[in-house]
Amino acid sequence: MSSGEDDLIARYFKPLATAPGALGLTDDAAILQAGGDDVVVTTDAIVAGVHFLPDDPPDTVARKALRVNLSDLAAKGAEPAGFVLTLALCKVSEAWLAPFARALGEDADQFGCPLLGGDTVSTPGPAMISVTAFGRVPLGKMVRRGAARAGDVLVVSGTIGDATLGLAVLKGEGGPLDNDAAARAEVIERYRVPQPRVALAHAVRDYASAAMDVSDGLMGDLAKLCGTSSASAVVEAAALPLSGPARSWLTSDPSLIARLVSGGDDYEILCAVPENRLAAFELAARSVSVPVSAIGRIVAGEAAPRLVDAGNREIPLQRRSYSHF
Amino acid sequence: MSSGEDDLIARYFKPLATAPGALGLTDDAAILQAGGDDVVVTTDAIVAGVHFLPDDPPDTVARKALRVNLSDLAAKGAEPAGFVLTLALCKVSEAWLAPFARALGEDADQFGCPLLGGDTVSTPGPAMISVTAFGRVPLGKMVRRGAARAGDVLVVSGTIGDATLGLAVLKGEGGPLDNDAAARAEVIERYRVPQPRVALAHAVRDYASAAMDVSDGLMGDLAKLCGTSSASAVVEAAALPLSGPARSWLTSDPSLIARLVSGGDDYEILCAVPENRLAAFELAARSVSVPVSAIGRIVAGEAAPRLVDAGNREIPLQRRSYSHF
Repeated sequence: MSSGEDDLIARYFKPLATAPGALGLTDDAAILQAGGDDVVVTTDAIVAGVHFLPDDPPDTVARKALRVNLSDLAAKGAEPAGFVLTLALCKVSEAWLAPFARALGEDADQFGCPLLGGDTVSTPGPAMISVTAFGRVPLGKMVRRGAARAGDVLVVSGTIGDATLGLAVLKGEGGPLDNDAAARAEVIERYRVPQPRVALAHAVRDYASAAMDVSDGLMGDLAKLCGTSSASAVVEAAALPLSGPARSWLTSDPSLIARLVSGGDDYEILCAVPENRLAAFELAARSVSVPVSAIGRIVAGEAAPRLVDAGNREIPLQRRSYSHF
Repeated sequence: MSSGEDDLIARYFKPLATAPGALGLTDDAAILQAGGDDVVVTTDAIVAGVHFLPDDPPDTVARKALRVNLSDLAAKGAEPAGFVLTLALCKVSEAWLAPFARALGEDADQFGCPLLGGDTVSTPGPAMISVTAFGRVPLGKMVRRGAARAGDVLVVSGTIGDATLGLAVLKGEGGPLDNDAAARAEVIERYRVPQPRVALAHAVRDYASAAMDVSDGLMGDLAKLCGTSSASAVVEAAALPLSGPARSWLTSDPSLIARLVSGGDDYEILCAVPENRLAAFELAARSVSVPVSAIGRIVAGEAAPRLVDAGNREIPLQRRSYSHF
């Protein structure tokens, strides 16, 4: 005799539990073999109406739930090892669950991060997906936030602000992008489906002194990295890597730069790289086809990181990152 | 500059992050050192209005969130190693969070399971607490559900049905307990604050062929253990360990036995022990002061496990366990 919950797990999630340690999701717990490495653990949850829109396609919700965690692992220099999933749903709908589970399985395959276990609960509230993901690093080699040193070059992967712009477009605040369907689609995709920089993990581990993923806004996350490292930083606005749509958006109002550097959901990697390792880091990034840009420097001091224009004048920021409370 | 979310974490949860690998909750991820062992991973979430009552005291909610996971680890024969917490809240209230975090810290200390990391998110819905807990077992030694064999003795720890009775009392269905405040308090406490059998983990690992924790109802969970083991079972109603309040409740209506064996939240350990190891298991359980009772046998076959009376007549069960969907 099996319950609806068991049927749901067997039907949608058992096919994703490809690792031997998942025991086919028929047990209370899973086995994660560390194989002599340190296990890196990270957890991030997404809530309908907060982290994704209730009518976002379920496949994008699944990808976002896993990828925000893969982004953390990559920033720590860890190779993905597996994840567990807590799924809180108001009702079970085949039309929602089937594409959700299919996309989750595709991402698990693509990033080498199999489902190990989970819990499925009912809630009278909005859907919530909580993922705890595991990675492996050689003993003692996890890259931390707190080891940046004055003089290190600040490097960021990809482009900054596109997800914030995507959300603005979805809210009808896209301005000059209103007549550019391709640009709108590009930034909406950035908002809905992060591209975790899993491929960059090895380079981060080998060359960065400190790293974190940019999830709550570049300047706010940089402030956290600096705070933990007891340092400050200067970011040159002219050096920020921006996409074509982001540049178009800025033409309508250059002060929107403040939104691009404080909005969430970039899921790029921000790291501090000692100058004498920068060339090697850039080469390693190029070898895995991840664009990286030097955007500034770690400097001594306790002040909040500054964003400066070409004349070294500080660009004021009303807020630096997203906060839930 | 720090956000409300960071303040909340620093104020309430940083004091709980006592393990070096938690990095004081100042990083994106935590380090779990496996030290040559297998890491056992389990995850369970609780939702207000589903797994606990919205006006349950916050300290009991915290304890329940962690303990339901500790119960899984114990049933797998694992020693606790740490946990991560996802806390989804509608609003932040000092009056709720302070006792929640204090109780969580006390339990983490008591059971040797420190906070490693977490995520705090806002939700427009009910509060939800999702915990992923980690344990360690020697390589290959996690006790599974699927290795019970015909002839094994079924053993359960503690008493069965008290949490279900506690919930019945809270709903005004306590019958003969209405005039017994001490009995009511005893079973309400069982519902609100599980007592995970962490102390029994070693005995389970040394002597059980298969084990799981009883969280969704004894007979339903036994059906899962049997299903995974390709076996069946017979449970003798007369052998079930029942508390004084549960016996009082049954006096009002003996058929309530069906509710006691199918209701959730026992958080006792159910295991199958080969007969030639039973005495050693019982001795090991006694040495850690955990009461255990032999309640039946694993038998060959594919049939659902049967609950029988003293005359070996099957006691009918309308349902066997709690299901969310």
